[in-house]
Amino acid sequence: MRNVTADNITDVFMKYFGADTDPRMREVMKSLATHLHAFARDVNLTHDEWRQGIKFLEAAGRISNETRHEFVLLSDVLGLSSLVDMLHSGTEGTSSSVLGPFHISGSPSLPFGGDMKRHYDGEVLVACGTVTDTAGNPIAGAEIDIWQTAPNGLYSSQDEEQDTFSFHGIQTTGPDGRYGFSTVKPVSYTVPTDGPVGDILRATGRHPWRPSHLHYIVKAAGFRPLVTEIFPDDDPYLDQDTVFGVRGDLVMKYAPHPPEFFPNGYELSGSVKEPFLLAEFDLRLVPLA
Amino acid sequence: MRNVTADNITDVFMKYFGADTDPRMREVMKSLATHLHAFARDVNLTHDEWRQGIKFLEAAGRISNETRHEFVLLSDVLGLSSLVDMLHSGTEGTSSSVLGPFHISGSPSLPFGGDMKRHYDGEVLVACGTVTDTAGNPIAGAEIDIWQTAPNGLYSSQDEEQDTFSFHGIQTTGPDGRYGFSTVKPVSYTVPTDGPVGDILRATGRHPWRPSHLHYIVKAAGFRPLVTEIFPDDDPYLDQDTVFGVRGDLVMKYAPHPPEFFPNGYELSGSVKEPFLLAEFDLRLVPLA
Repeated sequence: MRNVTADNITDVFMKYFGADTDPRMREVMKSLATHLHAFARDVNLTHDEWRQGIKFLEAAGRISNETRHEFVLLSDVLGLSSLVDMLHSGTEGTSSSVLGPFHISGSPSLPFGGDMKRHYDGEVLVACGTVTDTAGNPIAGAEIDIWQTAPNGLYSSQDEEQDTFSFHGIQTTGPDGRYGFSTVKPVSYTVPTDGPVGDILRATGRHPWRPSHLHYIVKAAGFRPLVTEIFPDDDPYLDQDTVFGVRGDLVMKYAPHPPEFFPNGYELSGSVKEPFLLAEFDLRLVPLA
Repeated sequence: MRNVTADNITDVFMKYFGADTDPRMREVMKSLATHLHAFARDVNLTHDEWRQGIKFLEAAGRISNETRHEFVLLSDVLGLSSLVDMLHSGTEGTSSSVLGPFHISGSPSLPFGGDMKRHYDGEVLVACGTVTDTAGNPIAGAEIDIWQTAPNGLYSSQDEEQDTFSFHGIQTTGPDGRYGFSTVKPVSYTVPTDGPVGDILRATGRHPWRPSHLHYIVKAAGFRPLVTEIFPDDDPYLDQDTVFGVRGDLVMKYAPHPPEFFPNGYELSGSVKEPFLLAEFDLRLVPLA
Protein backbone atom coordinates (compact mmCIF):
# COMPACT_ATOMS: atom_id res chain seq x y z
CA MET A 1 0.00 0.00 0.00
CA ARG A 2 1.37 3.40 -0.94
CA ASN A 3 -1.51 5.02 0.90
CA VAL A 4 -1.06 3.55 4.33
CA THR A 5 -2.92 5.69 6.86
CA ALA A 6 -3.22 5.78 10.65
CA ASP A 7 -6.65 4.21 10.20
CA ASN A 8 -5.88 1.33 7.83
CA ILE A 9 -2.38 0.29 8.95
CA THR A 10 -3.57 -2.67 11.03
CA ASP A 11 -5.44 -4.09 8.02
CA VAL A 12 -2.44 -3.48 5.78
CA PHE A 13 -0.25 -5.27 8.33
CA MET A 14 -2.44 -8.38 8.08
CA LYS A 15 -2.52 -8.20 4.25
CA TYR A 16 1.26 -8.58 4.19
CA PHE A 17 1.04 -12.04 5.79
CA GLY A 18 1.85 -15.07 3.65
CA ALA A 19 -1.05 -17.36 2.69
CA ASP A 20 0.34 -20.36 4.56
CA THR A 21 1.03 -18.62 7.88
CA ASP A 22 0.43 -20.86 10.87
CA PRO A 23 -3.10 -19.98 12.07
CA ARG A 24 -2.05 -19.48 15.70
CA MET A 25 0.84 -17.22 14.65
CA ARG A 26 -1.63 -15.23 12.54
CA GLU A 27 -4.05 -14.92 15.46
CA VAL A 28 -1.38 -13.85 17.97
CA MET A 29 0.29 -11.35 15.63
CA LYS A 30 -3.02 -9.86 14.53
CA SER A 31 -4.05 -9.27 18.15
CA LEU A 32 -0.59 -7.94 19.05
CA ALA A 33 -0.57 -5.44 16.16
CA THR A 34 -4.20 -4.45 16.77
CA HIS A 35 -3.51 -3.65 20.43
CA LEU A 36 -0.13 -2.04 19.77
CA HIS A 37 -1.65 0.24 17.14
CA ALA A 38 -4.68 1.01 19.31
CA PHE A 39 -2.35 1.93 22.19
CA ALA A 40 -0.41 4.36 19.98
CA ARG A 41 -3.66 5.91 18.69
CA ASP A 42 -5.35 6.07 22.11
CA VAL A 43 -2.53 8.07 23.68
CA ASN A 44 -1.48 9.81 20.45
CA LEU A 45 2.05 8.52 21.11
CA THR A 46 4.67 11.13 20.23
CA HIS A 47 8.02 10.58 18.52
CA ASP A 48 9.78 11.50 21.77
CA GLU A 49 7.77 8.95 23.72
CA TRP A 50 8.42 6.34 21.04
CA ARG A 51 12.16 7.07 21.31
CA GLN A 52 11.95 6.71 25.11
CA GLY A 53 10.31 3.33 24.60
CA ILE A 54 13.04 2.19 22.19
CA LYS A 55 15.74 3.41 24.59
CA PHE A 56 14.01 1.55 27.42
CA LEU A 57 14.02 -1.73 25.45
CA GLU A 58 17.66 -1.26 24.44
CA ALA A 59 18.65 -0.59 28.05
CA ALA A 60 16.74 -3.68 29.20
CA GLY A 61 18.64 -5.67 26.56
CA ARG A 62 22.01 -4.33 27.72
CA ILE A 63 21.45 -5.18 31.41
CA SER A 64 20.15 -8.68 30.65
CA ASN A 65 22.38 -11.73 30.81
CA GLU A 66 22.15 -15.36 31.85
CA THR A 67 21.14 -14.50 35.39
CA ARG A 68 19.56 -11.06 34.98
CA HIS A 69 16.27 -11.24 33.09
CA GLU A 70 15.06 -7.66 32.82
CA PHE A 71 12.35 -8.48 30.26
CA VAL A 72 10.87 -11.07 32.64
CA LEU A 73 10.93 -8.42 35.37
CA LEU A 74 9.22 -5.97 33.01
CA SER A 75 6.51 -8.53 32.29
CA ASP A 76 6.22 -9.14 36.04
CA VAL A 77 5.75 -5.49 37.09
CA LEU A 78 3.33 -4.86 34.21
CA GLY A 79 1.19 -7.76 35.48
CA LEU A 80 1.56 -9.74 32.25
CA SER A 81 3.32 -12.71 33.88
CA SER A 82 0.61 -13.02 36.53
CA LEU A 83 -2.14 -12.64 33.95
CA VAL A 84 -0.71 -15.48 31.84
CA ASP A 85 -0.51 -17.60 35.01
CA MET A 86 -4.09 -16.85 35.93
CA LEU A 87 -5.41 -17.52 32.43
CA HIS A 88 -4.13 -21.09 32.67
CA SER A 89 -4.30 -21.77 36.39
CA GLY A 90 -7.81 -23.20 36.67
CA THR A 91 -9.52 -23.76 40.03
CA GLU A 92 -9.11 -27.50 40.64
CA GLY A 93 -5.49 -27.39 41.80
CA THR A 94 -3.22 -25.08 43.76
CA SER A 95 -3.00 -21.70 42.00
CA SER A 96 0.10 -21.02 40.01
CA SER A 97 2.12 -17.84 40.49
CA VAL A 98 4.96 -16.06 38.78
CA LEU A 99 8.18 -17.94 38.08
CA GLY A 100 10.17 -14.74 38.51
CA PRO A 101 13.58 -14.13 36.98
CA PHE A 102 15.67 -16.02 39.55
CA HIS A 103 14.95 -19.69 38.95
CA ILE A 104 18.05 -21.70 38.06
CA SER A 105 18.24 -25.26 36.80
CA GLY A 106 20.12 -28.16 38.34
CA SER A 107 19.59 -27.52 42.04
CA PRO A 108 21.01 -30.23 44.33
CA SER A 109 18.87 -32.94 45.86
CA LEU A 110 17.34 -32.02 49.22
CA PRO A 111 16.36 -35.15 51.17
CA PHE A 112 13.11 -35.27 53.12
CA GLY A 113 13.79 -33.48 56.40
CA GLY A 114 16.86 -31.84 54.93
CA ASP A 115 18.13 -28.36 55.67
CA MET A 116 18.49 -25.39 53.29
CA LYS A 117 19.66 -22.75 55.79
CA ARG A 118 23.18 -24.17 56.33
CA HIS A 119 25.18 -21.59 58.34
CA TYR A 120 22.72 -18.71 57.89
CA ASP A 121 21.18 -17.05 60.93
CA GLY A 122 17.52 -16.08 61.05
CA GLU A 123 14.21 -17.36 62.38
CA VAL A 124 14.05 -21.07 61.59
CA LEU A 125 11.20 -22.15 59.35
CA VAL A 126 10.06 -25.71 58.78
CA ALA A 127 8.01 -26.01 55.59
CA CYS A 128 6.12 -29.19 54.96
CA GLY A 129 2.98 -30.62 53.43
CA THR A 130 1.63 -33.22 51.07
CA VAL A 131 1.59 -33.25 47.29
CA THR A 132 -1.81 -34.58 46.25
CA ASP A 133 -4.05 -34.99 43.25
CA THR A 134 -7.30 -33.00 43.02
CA ALA A 135 -9.09 -35.69 45.07
CA GLY A 136 -6.57 -35.32 47.89
CA ASN A 137 -4.71 -38.60 47.24
CA PRO A 138 -0.96 -38.33 47.97
CA ILE A 139 1.36 -38.37 44.97
CA ALA A 140 4.56 -40.35 45.48
CA GLY A 141 7.67 -39.41 43.50
CA ALA A 142 6.60 -35.81 42.94
CA GLU A 143 9.56 -33.49 42.49
CA ILE A 144 9.55 -30.08 44.21
CA ASP A 145 12.09 -27.53 43.01
CA ILE A 146 12.46 -25.04 45.91
CA TRP A 147 14.20 -21.67 46.01
CA GLN A 148 14.16 -18.51 48.10
CA THR A 149 16.31 -15.53 49.04
CA ALA A 150 18.91 -15.55 51.77
CA PRO A 151 18.10 -13.44 54.88
CA ASN A 152 19.68 -10.43 53.09
CA GLY A 153 16.83 -10.52 50.55
CA LEU A 154 19.06 -11.62 47.68
CA TYR A 155 18.89 -14.75 45.56
CA SER A 156 22.15 -16.59 45.07
CA SER A 157 22.53 -15.28 41.52
CA GLN A 158 22.38 -11.70 42.85
CA ASP A 159 24.79 -12.18 45.73
CA GLU A 160 28.53 -12.77 45.59
CA GLU A 161 28.47 -14.07 49.18
CA GLN A 162 26.33 -17.07 48.21
CA ASP A 163 27.37 -20.04 46.13
CA THR A 164 25.27 -20.97 43.08
CA PHE A 165 22.81 -23.28 44.82
CA SER A 166 22.50 -21.50 48.15
CA PHE A 167 18.83 -21.67 49.21
CA HIS A 168 18.02 -23.96 46.31
CA GLY A 169 17.05 -27.63 46.50
CA ILE A 170 14.98 -30.33 44.82
CA GLN A 171 13.01 -32.73 46.98
CA THR A 172 11.19 -35.88 45.87
CA THR A 173 8.15 -37.08 47.81
CA GLY A 174 8.02 -40.57 49.27
CA PRO A 175 5.05 -42.99 49.22
CA ASP A 176 3.02 -40.69 51.54
CA GLY A 177 3.43 -37.70 49.21
CA ARG A 178 5.00 -35.69 52.05
CA TYR A 179 7.68 -33.04 51.63
CA GLY A 180 9.48 -31.18 54.41
CA PHE A 181 12.64 -29.22 55.00
CA SER A 182 14.08 -26.60 57.31
CA THR A 183 15.26 -23.20 56.22
CA VAL A 184 15.24 -19.61 57.48
CA LYS A 185 12.11 -17.55 57.30
CA PRO A 186 12.03 -15.77 53.91
CA VAL A 187 12.07 -11.98 53.99
CA SER A 188 10.22 -9.35 52.00
CA TYR A 189 12.57 -8.01 49.34
CA THR A 190 12.70 -5.55 46.49
CA VAL A 191 12.92 -6.51 42.85
CA PRO A 192 16.10 -5.12 41.23
CA THR A 193 15.71 -1.36 40.77
CA ASP A 194 19.09 -0.54 39.24
CA GLY A 195 17.87 -1.15 35.68
CA PRO A 196 15.25 0.38 33.39
CA VAL A 197 12.39 -1.46 35.13
CA GLY A 198 13.42 0.38 38.32
CA ASP A 199 13.05 3.63 36.35
CA ILE A 200 9.45 2.67 35.48
CA LEU A 201 8.65 1.94 39.13
CA ARG A 202 10.07 5.31 40.20
CA ALA A 203 8.30 7.18 37.40
CA THR A 204 4.95 5.70 38.42
CA GLY A 205 5.46 6.16 42.16
CA ARG A 206 5.42 2.42 42.83
CA HIS A 207 7.40 0.61 45.52
CA PRO A 208 9.58 -2.34 44.44
CA TRP A 209 8.63 -4.71 47.28
CA ARG A 210 7.49 -8.29 47.11
CA PRO A 211 5.99 -10.04 50.13
CA SER A 212 8.20 -12.83 51.49
CA HIS A 213 7.63 -16.23 49.89
CA LEU A 214 8.99 -19.64 49.04
CA HIS A 215 9.12 -20.61 45.36
CA TYR A 216 8.02 -24.11 44.33
CA ILE A 217 7.92 -25.84 40.97
CA VAL A 218 6.11 -29.16 41.44
CA LYS A 219 6.29 -31.89 38.82
CA ALA A 220 4.82 -35.40 38.83
CA ALA A 221 4.23 -37.90 36.03
CA GLY A 222 0.70 -37.56 34.65
CA PHE A 223 0.10 -34.11 36.18
CA ARG A 224 0.41 -30.53 34.96
CA PRO A 225 3.59 -28.90 36.29
CA LEU A 226 2.81 -26.29 38.95
CA VAL A 227 4.90 -23.11 39.20
CA THR A 228 3.90 -21.33 42.37
CA GLU A 229 4.87 -19.43 45.52
CA ILE A 230 3.51 -19.48 49.08
CA PHE A 231 3.18 -16.39 51.25
CA PRO A 232 2.76 -15.91 55.03
CA ASP A 233 -0.41 -14.09 56.02
CA ASP A 234 1.44 -11.54 58.19
CA ASP A 235 3.60 -9.98 55.48
CA PRO A 236 3.09 -6.20 55.17
CA TYR A 237 3.31 -6.38 51.35
CA LEU A 238 0.78 -9.17 50.93
CA ASP A 239 -1.80 -6.81 49.42
CA GLN A 240 0.62 -4.88 47.27
CA ASP A 241 3.00 -7.36 45.70
CA THR A 242 4.77 -5.35 42.99
CA VAL A 243 4.61 -8.33 40.61
CA PHE A 244 0.96 -9.25 41.39
CA GLY A 245 1.87 -12.80 42.47
CA VAL A 246 -0.37 -13.31 45.53
CA ARG A 247 -3.49 -15.51 45.21
CA GLY A 248 -5.87 -16.16 48.10
CA ASP A 249 -5.12 -19.90 48.24
CA LEU A 250 -1.35 -19.34 48.32
CA VAL A 251 -1.44 -17.58 51.69
CA MET A 252 -0.42 -19.69 54.71
CA LYS A 253 0.09 -19.12 58.43
CA TYR A 254 3.30 -19.54 60.38
CA ALA A 255 2.72 -21.58 63.56
CA PRO A 256 5.40 -21.16 66.26
CA HIS A 257 6.62 -24.36 67.89
CA PRO A 258 9.21 -25.37 70.47
CA PRO A 259 12.13 -27.46 69.19
CA GLU A 260 10.61 -30.53 70.85
CA PHE A 261 7.61 -30.42 68.47
CA PHE A 262 7.78 -32.72 65.47
CA PRO A 263 5.25 -32.25 62.73
CA ASN A 264 3.46 -35.37 61.64
CA GLY A 265 5.73 -37.50 59.51
CA TYR A 266 8.58 -35.04 59.69
CA GLU A 267 12.06 -36.12 60.70
CA LEU A 268 14.03 -33.06 61.76
CA SER A 269 17.34 -34.89 61.34
CA GLY A 270 18.85 -32.90 64.16
CA SER A 271 19.03 -29.72 62.09
CA VAL A 272 16.51 -27.78 64.22
CA LYS A 273 17.52 -27.24 67.85
CA GLU A 274 15.61 -24.03 68.57
CA PRO A 275 12.00 -22.79 68.49
CA PHE A 276 10.78 -22.66 64.92
CA LEU A 277 7.91 -21.56 62.70
CA LEU A 278 5.96 -24.26 60.93
CA ALA A 279 4.44 -23.64 57.50
CA GLU A 280 2.20 -26.54 56.54
CA PHE A 281 1.07 -26.23 52.94
CA ASP A 282 -0.37 -28.93 50.68
CA LEU A 283 0.20 -28.77 46.94
CA ARG A 284 -2.63 -30.02 44.77
CA LEU A 285 -1.80 -31.04 41.19
CA VAL A 286 -4.18 -31.25 38.24
CA PRO A 287 -4.02 -34.35 36.00
CA LEU A 288 -2.85 -33.83 32.42
CA ALA A 289 -5.80 -33.61 30.04
CA MET B 1 -4.47 -7.18 46.43
CA ARG B 2 -4.17 -10.79 47.48
CA ASN B 3 -7.07 -11.66 45.20
CA VAL B 4 -5.76 -10.44 41.89
CA THR B 5 -7.71 -12.08 39.06
CA ALA B 6 -7.45 -12.18 35.29
CA ASP B 7 -10.39 -9.76 35.24
CA ASN B 8 -9.26 -7.12 37.75
CA ILE B 9 -5.48 -7.05 37.21
CA THR B 10 -5.56 -3.93 35.02
CA ASP B 11 -7.42 -2.01 37.75
CA VAL B 12 -5.04 -3.34 40.40
CA PHE B 13 -2.12 -2.21 38.23
CA MET B 14 -3.47 1.36 38.22
CA LYS B 15 -4.14 1.29 41.99
CA TYR B 16 -0.44 0.68 42.61
CA PHE B 17 0.46 4.05 41.07
CA GLY B 18 1.70 6.81 43.36
CA ALA B 19 -0.63 9.77 43.91
CA ASP B 20 1.74 12.29 42.36
CA THR B 21 2.46 10.38 39.15
CA ASP B 22 2.90 12.62 36.13
CA PRO B 23 -0.52 12.66 34.42
CA ARG B 24 0.88 11.86 30.97
CA MET B 25 2.91 8.94 32.40
CA ARG B 26 -0.27 7.68 34.07
CA GLU B 27 -2.22 7.97 30.81
CA VAL B 28 0.41 6.18 28.72
CA MET B 29 1.03 3.39 31.23
CA LYS B 30 -2.68 2.82 31.77
CA SER B 31 -3.28 2.45 28.05
CA LEU B 32 -0.18 0.27 27.65
CA ALA B 33 -1.22 -2.11 30.45
CA THR B 34 -4.85 -2.15 29.29
CA HIS B 35 -3.87 -3.17 25.76
CA LEU B 36 -1.14 -5.58 26.89
CA HIS B 37 -3.56 -7.35 29.22
CA ALA B 38 -6.33 -7.36 26.60
CA PHE B 39 -3.91 -8.90 24.09
CA ALA B 40 -3.02 -11.71 26.52
CA ARG B 41 -6.70 -12.33 27.28
CA ASP B 42 -7.85 -12.13 23.63
CA VAL B 43 -5.44 -14.81 22.46
CA ASN B 44 -5.36 -16.72 25.78
CA LEU B 45 -1.57 -16.37 25.68
CA THR B 46 0.15 -19.56 26.89
CA HIS B 47 3.23 -19.84 29.09
CA ASP B 48 5.15 -21.26 26.12
CA GLU B 49 4.17 -18.32 23.94
CA TRP B 50 5.07 -15.91 26.75
CA ARG B 51 8.51 -17.59 27.01
CA GLN B 52 8.95 -17.25 23.23
CA GLY B 53 8.17 -13.55 23.57
CA ILE B 54 10.72 -13.11 26.37
CA LYS B 55 13.35 -15.03 24.37
CA PHE B 56 12.58 -12.83 21.37
CA LEU B 57 13.14 -9.64 23.37
CA GLU B 58 16.35 -11.00 24.91
CA ALA B 59 17.66 -11.99 21.46
CA ALA B 60 16.79 -8.53 20.11
CA GLY B 61 18.73 -7.05 23.03
CA ARG B 62 21.77 -9.23 22.36
CA ILE B 63 22.01 -8.33 18.66
CA SER B 64 21.55 -4.60 19.28
CA ASN B 65 24.49 -2.25 19.50
CA GLU B 66 25.36 1.31 18.52
CA THR B 67 24.70 0.67 14.85
CA ARG B 68 22.25 -2.24 14.95
CA HIS B 69 18.88 -1.17 16.33
CA GLU B 70 16.75 -4.32 16.35
CA PHE B 71 13.99 -2.78 18.50
CA VAL B 72 13.60 0.05 15.97
CA LEU B 73 13.39 -2.57 13.23
CA LEU B 74 10.77 -4.46 15.26
CA SER B 75 8.73 -1.27 15.63
CA ASP B 76 9.15 -0.69 11.88
CA VAL B 77 7.94 -4.11 10.70
CA LEU B 78 5.03 -4.02 13.17
CA GLY B 79 3.91 -0.71 11.67
CA LEU B 80 4.32 1.18 14.95
CA SER B 81 6.99 3.55 13.65
CA SER B 82 4.88 4.49 10.63
CA LEU B 83 1.78 4.88 12.77
CA VAL B 84 3.55 7.31 15.13
CA ASP B 85 4.75 9.23 12.05
CA MET B 86 1.28 9.41 10.60
CA LEU B 87 -0.32 10.47 13.88
CA HIS B 88 1.86 13.59 13.90
CA SER B 89 2.42 14.22 10.22
CA GLY B 90 -0.52 16.47 9.45
CA THR B 91 -1.47 17.42 5.90
CA GLU B 92 -0.01 20.91 5.45
CA GLY B 93 3.56 19.84 4.85
CA THR B 94 5.42 16.99 3.20
CA SER B 95 4.49 13.70 4.89
CA SER B 96 6.97 12.28 7.31
CA SER B 97 8.15 8.68 7.05
CA VAL B 98 10.16 6.24 9.14
CA LEU B 99 13.61 7.25 10.33
CA GLY B 100 14.74 3.64 10.15
CA PRO B 101 17.61 2.19 12.17
CA PHE B 102 20.48 3.43 9.97
CA HIS B 103 20.66 7.16 10.52
CA ILE B 104 23.99 8.30 11.93
CA SER B 105 24.90 11.71 13.28
CA GLY B 106 27.67 13.99 12.12
CA SER B 107 27.57 13.46 8.36
CA PRO B 108 29.97 15.66 6.36
CA SER B 109 28.84 18.81 4.59
CA LEU B 110 27.66 18.26 1.01
CA PRO B 111 27.82 21.51 -0.99
CA PHE B 112 25.03 22.43 -3.40
CA GLY B 113 25.70 20.46 -6.59
CA GLY B 114 28.00 18.12 -4.70
CA ASP B 115 28.42 14.43 -5.33
CA MET B 116 27.64 11.49 -2.99
CA LYS B 117 28.45 8.61 -5.38
CA ARG B 118 32.25 9.05 -5.34
CA HIS B 119 33.79 6.01 -7.09
CA TYR B 120 30.63 3.88 -7.06
CA ASP B 121 29.19 2.63 -10.34
CA GLY B 122 25.46 2.64 -11.01
CA GLU B 123 22.85 4.70 -12.79
CA VAL B 124 23.52 8.33 -11.95
CA LEU B 125 20.75 10.15 -10.13
CA VAL B 126 20.51 13.88 -9.64
CA ALA B 127 18.15 14.75 -6.79
CA CYS B 128 17.08 18.34 -6.40
CA GLY B 129 14.21 20.54 -5.30
CA THR B 130 13.25 23.45 -3.11
CA VAL B 131 12.66 23.56 0.62
CA THR B 132 9.60 25.73 1.17
CA ASP B 133 7.11 26.75 3.80
CA THR B 134 3.47 25.72 3.48
CA ALA B 135 2.78 28.71 1.26
CA GLY B 136 5.53 27.66 -1.16
CA ASN B 137 8.04 30.35 -0.16
CA PRO B 138 11.64 29.11 -0.32
CA ILE B 139 13.42 28.60 3.00
CA ALA B 140 17.06 29.67 3.01
CA GLY B 141 19.48 28.00 5.42
CA ALA B 142 17.45 24.80 5.72
CA GLU B 143 19.61 21.81 6.55
CA ILE B 144 18.97 18.50 4.76
CA ASP B 145 20.55 15.40 6.26
CA ILE B 146 20.70 12.86 3.40
CA TRP B 147 21.50 9.15 3.49
CA GLN B 148 20.95 6.07 1.34
CA THR B 149 22.38 2.61 0.66
CA ALA B 150 25.28 1.92 -1.66
CA PRO B 151 24.42 0.04 -4.90
CA ASN B 152 24.87 -3.25 -2.97
CA GLY B 153 21.80 -2.39 -0.87
CA LEU B 154 23.79 -1.84 2.33
CA TYR B 155 24.11 1.26 4.47
CA SER B 156 27.63 2.20 5.48
CA SER B 157 27.12 0.88 9.02
CA GLN B 158 26.23 -2.56 7.60
CA ASP B 159 29.11 -2.75 5.13
CA GLU B 160 32.81 -3.15 5.84
CA GLU B 161 33.62 -1.96 2.30
CA GLN B 162 32.21 1.51 3.01
CA ASP B 163 33.64 4.15 5.28
CA THR B 164 31.45 5.64 8.01
CA PHE B 165 29.96 8.48 5.99
CA SER B 166 29.72 6.80 2.59
CA PHE B 167 26.41 7.90 0.99
CA HIS B 168 25.78 10.36 3.81
CA GLY B 169 25.82 14.14 3.55
CA ILE B 170 24.30 17.30 4.97
CA GLN B 171 23.37 20.11 2.59
CA THR B 172 22.29 23.64 3.50
CA THR B 173 19.98 25.55 1.16
CA GLY B 174 20.98 28.93 -0.22
CA PRO B 175 18.77 32.03 -0.56
CA ASP B 176 16.58 30.32 -3.20
CA GLY B 177 15.85 27.32 -0.90
CA ARG B 178 17.25 24.95 -3.53
CA TYR B 179 19.05 21.70 -2.78
CA GLY B 180 20.71 19.40 -5.29
CA PHE B 181 23.31 16.68 -5.46
CA SER B 182 24.36 13.74 -7.60
CA THR B 183 24.43 10.15 -6.41
CA VAL B 184 23.68 6.68 -7.75
CA LYS B 185 20.11 5.50 -8.09
CA PRO B 186 19.08 3.88 -4.79
CA VAL B 187 18.15 0.20 -4.95
CA SER B 188 15.41 -1.83 -3.30
CA TYR B 189 16.90 -3.66 -0.36
CA THR B 190 15.98 -6.03 2.43
CA VAL B 191 15.90 -5.08 6.08
CA PRO B 192 18.34 -7.21 8.14
CA THR B 193 16.93 -10.72 8.46
CA ASP B 194 19.74 -12.36 10.48
CA GLY B 195 18.18 -11.38 13.81
CA PRO B 196 14.95 -12.15 15.66
CA VAL B 197 12.94 -9.67 13.55
CA GLY B 198 13.93 -11.77 10.52
CA ASP B 199 12.46 -14.78 12.34
CA ILE B 200 9.14 -12.91 12.67
CA LEU B 201 9.10 -12.07 8.96
CA ARG B 202 9.75 -15.71 8.05
CA ALA B 203 7.16 -17.01 10.52
CA THR B 204 4.50 -14.74 9.04
CA GLY B 205 5.43 -15.39 5.41
CA ARG B 206 6.45 -11.78 4.81
CA HIS B 207 9.20 -10.59 2.48
CA PRO B 208 11.86 -8.29 3.94
CA TRP B 209 12.00 -5.80 1.02
CA ARG B 210 11.80 -2.05 1.09
CA PRO B 211 11.27 -0.02 -2.09
CA SER B 212 14.30 2.06 -3.03
CA HIS B 213 14.41 5.53 -1.47
CA LEU B 214 16.46 8.49 -0.33
CA HIS B 215 16.28 9.45 3.34
CA TYR B 216 15.99 13.12 4.28
CA ILE B 217 15.84 14.88 7.63
CA VAL B 218 15.04 18.54 6.97
CA LYS B 219 15.52 21.17 9.66
CA ALA B 220 15.03 24.93 9.52
CA ALA B 221 14.70 27.55 12.23
CA GLY B 222 11.04 28.17 13.06
CA PHE B 223 9.80 24.97 11.39
CA ARG B 224 8.98 21.46 12.57
CA PRO B 225 11.79 19.03 11.68
CA LEU B 226 10.77 16.67 8.87
CA VAL B 227 11.99 13.06 8.87
CA THR B 228 11.04 11.55 5.53
CA GLU B 229 11.94 9.41 2.52
CA ILE B 230 11.20 9.76 -1.19
CA PHE B 231 10.39 6.80 -3.46
CA PRO B 232 10.44 6.39 -7.26
CA ASP B 233 7.09 5.44 -8.78
CA ASP B 234 8.51 2.45 -10.70
CA ASP B 235 9.76 0.45 -7.73
CA PRO B 236 8.27 -3.08 -7.57
CA TYR B 237 7.95 -2.89 -3.76
CA LEU B 238 6.19 0.48 -3.67
CA ASP B 239 2.89 -1.11 -2.61
CA GLN B 240 4.40 -3.57 -0.15
CA ASP B 241 7.08 -1.76 1.81
CA THR B 242 7.85 -4.12 4.71
CA VAL B 243 8.09 -1.15 7.10
CA PHE B 244 4.97 0.67 5.80
CA GLY B 245 6.91 3.85 4.94
CA VAL B 246 5.37 4.87 1.58
CA ARG B 247 2.92 7.80 1.50
CA GLY B 248 1.24 8.99 -1.69
CA ASP B 249 2.93 12.39 -1.66
CA LEU B 250 6.41 10.90 -1.17
CA VAL B 251 6.36 9.15 -4.56
CA MET B 252 8.32 10.88 -7.34
CA LYS B 253 9.23 10.11 -10.95
CA TYR B 254 12.69 9.67 -12.40
CA ALA B 255 13.14 11.72 -15.56
CA PRO B 256 15.99 10.58 -17.86
CA HIS B 257 18.22 13.36 -19.22
CA PRO B 258 21.34 13.61 -21.35
CA PRO B 259 24.47 14.89 -19.59
CA GLU B 260 24.07 18.24 -21.36
CA PHE B 261 20.84 18.94 -19.46
CA PHE B 262 21.14 21.16 -16.44
CA PRO B 263 18.19 21.40 -14.09
CA ASN B 264 17.10 24.89 -13.23
CA GLY B 265 19.48 26.46 -10.78
CA TYR B 266 21.59 23.35 -10.53
CA GLU B 267 25.35 23.45 -10.98
CA LEU B 268 26.62 19.95 -11.78
CA SER B 269 30.20 20.86 -10.85
CA GLY B 270 31.52 18.50 -13.49
CA SER B 271 30.57 15.41 -11.52
CA VAL B 272 27.98 14.17 -14.03
CA LYS B 273 29.35 13.33 -17.47
CA GLU B 274 26.81 10.69 -18.55
CA PRO B 275 23.04 10.42 -19.03
CA PHE B 276 21.31 10.67 -15.67
CA LEU B 277 17.95 10.39 -13.95
CA LEU B 278 16.53 13.52 -12.42
CA ALA B 279 14.42 13.37 -9.25
CA GLU B 280 12.89 16.77 -8.60
CA PHE B 281 11.19 16.83 -5.20
CA ASP B 282 10.18 19.83 -3.14
CA LEU B 283 10.13 19.59 0.66
CA ARG B 284 7.43 21.58 2.40
CA LEU B 285 7.94 22.41 6.09
CA VAL B 286 5.29 23.28 8.64
CA PRO B 287 5.91 26.27 10.96
CA LEU B 288 6.36 25.54 14.65
CA ALA B 289 3.14 26.11 16.54
